[in-house]
Amino acid sequence: MYGIQSWGENLRLLVELSATAAFALSGLMEAARKKLDVVGICVVGFLTAFGGGTLRDLLLDQRPFFWVQHVGVLWGVLGLCVLAMLFMRHRHFELTEKAIQWPDALGLGLFAATGVHHALAAGMPGLVAVMMGLVTGVFGGVLRDMVCNEIPTAFRDHRPYAVCAFAGGWVYVGLWQFDAPGWAALTACVVVTAGLRGLALWRNWQLPAWHV
Amino acid sequence: MYGIQSWGENLRLLVELSATAAFALSGLMEAARKKLDVVGICVVGFLTAFGGGTLRDLLLDQRPFFWVQHVGVLWGVLGLCVLAMLFMRHRHFELTEKAIQWPDALGLGLFAATGVHHALAAGMPGLVAVMMGLVTGVFGGVLRDMVCNEIPTAFRDHRPYAVCAFAGGWVYVGLWQFDAPGWAALTACVVVTAGLRGLALWRNWQLPAWHV
Amino acid sequence: MYGIQSWGENLRLLVELSATAAFALSGLMEAARKKLDVVGICVVGFLTAFGGGTLRDLLLDQRPFFWVQHVGVLWGVLGLCVLAMLFMRHRHFELTEKAIQWPDALGLGLFAATGVHHALAAGMPGLVAVMMGLVTGVFGGVLRDMVCNEIPTAFRDHRPYAVCAFAGGWVYVGLWQFDAPGWAALTACVVVTAGLRGLALWRNWQLPAWHV
Repeated sequence: MYGIQSWGENLRLLVELSATAAFALSGLMEAARKKLDVVGICVVGFLTAFGGGTLRDLLLDQRPFFWVQHVGVLWGVLGLCVLAMLFMRHRHFELTEKAIQWPDALGLGLFAATGVHHALAAGMPGLVAVMMGLVTGVFGGVLRDMVCNEIPTAFRDHRPYAVCAFAGGWVYVGLWQFDAPGWAALTACVVVTAGLRGLALWRNWQLPAWHV
Repeated sequence: MYGIQSWGENLRLLVELSATAAFALSGLMEAARKKLDVVGICVVGFLTAFGGGTLRDLLLDQRPFFWVQHVGVLWGVLGLCVLAMLFMRHRHFELTEKAIQWPDALGLGLFAATGVHHALAAGMPGLVAVMMGLVTGVFGGVLRDMVCNEIPTAFRDHRPYAVCAFAGGWVYVGLWQFDAPGWAALTACVVVTAGLRGLALWRNWQLPAWHV
Repeated sequence: MYGIQSWGENLRLLVELSATAAFALSGLMEAARKKLDVVGICVVGFLTAFGGGTLRDLLLDQRPFFWVQHVGVLWGVLGLCVLAMLFMRHRHFELTEKAIQWPDALGLGLFAATGVHHALAAGMPGLVAVMMGLVTGVFGGVLRDMVCNEIPTAFRDHRPYAVCAFAGGWVYVGLWQFDAPGWAALTACVVVTAGLRGLALWRNWQLPAWHV
């Protein structure tokens, strides 16, 4: 059994690290498009990668932050920023954006599940837990766009992103209330979120618009 | 006596709920004007309604948040967002804006009083308490405008809004220091804030401008 | 010995107060340029002066805030706002901007040192401590620009600002790890940060750009 559990743990870690890298890359590229300088590019990369989890921990009053416990991840993102600035060119951008859609979708699910889990473990009610999942998954990108002086993409591009995490979050809450094991809830949340997000990307779904 | 106190409590709750609804509505309409999608509209509604009190509690290090203790309010605002999207049209906007000026003014006073009260109870000095009142009353709207990529209205439209809450806050602090009962300080703060705001709207007052 | 230590303390306080005033002034002038009203000008002044230290304390979970412990500074910044609005005119702006570059550079160093110190004292690892120094020194200006609906200057003007504090922060961390006395680490951090910043201003240094 140990082998399987450790294998699962490693898989989770792998997904989490690639999601963090995907988030950081999306921040880097947005900052480059806005012609920010070296400092701005690193800051936006960090904010996108760690903003969501940090706000969640602030709201839940939990310390230490993820990036304090695992300083290695900070160094990793810093290295990613340096490497990107050395080797990435404009023609790589579109390709990269395509490539990070999948770790991003997986990461959205995983971050949402983490957020919901932390909130439930802190005794929060279901709706609050789902909102914490959303914050963890979505707020990094929101911060990225706010610093770059844009209305956050997550709030205006009419393609389902946050709503996928909303659905996945409720799946987690539901399974938790039926005392399902943690890995089952985690997997279900990731599968539902990333699955919905993948379907939305594939079938080009649009959210119903409010025709005011 | 019980009857009166409970009547007062109910009145306070009624004012608070209508103020929250007024704040959420102002967020909804701003988001609709900016053509945000369904997610953005709900998020801006929530931020406007709960942003001020949440920042105050973060700064004062107080938990649980209002919306964690009363999850019903979260569901209420979510329902309001859905109802607005189903039934509100552009021609309702101007009317709604007129109609919510009054719960908004009352709410500003009440939220300011709540903020001052929490800060004083946490042992903060007078000026800090007044600032916490301002944060509670004004920061929701500031967040709304920042997410919608505007300079916050509260900081640029030259009509007295925050200054009314500033005055009302000092009234609360003054009465508190003379050991006045809580309901008296609350009432005085609401009356002064909402009264000044009402006068400002009615007489079209302008703040003195800085002619640099 | 007492005389020297107290003299050093007074010097530190003097630098800190002039840096706070310099930060507040830069906020005031930015707000005036954006034609904010009286409320907006005061708010942006406060945010610029206290935003960085406040975010650091939020992240490190430390209370009370600087401006709660020393309410006098709040009154001072409020007075500065009123005085500026009474006596400052556009023709003073350029002059003031030149004049505050030096307290600003000193303040950047001192605020960075304070941030690093608080973080190390709270048991944070080196990289996190340096980031807390950056947050303390830079985030006030970032908030100022975000409220004024601009991409933060610190992230886009290609002149070294945050990187000076980054270097100074590592000097502090290095000396701390060799058990150097506090005043030595503080002085070294301020000298390196302000020195680099001064050199950058004098020689018109530019950060290497990312030619994407």
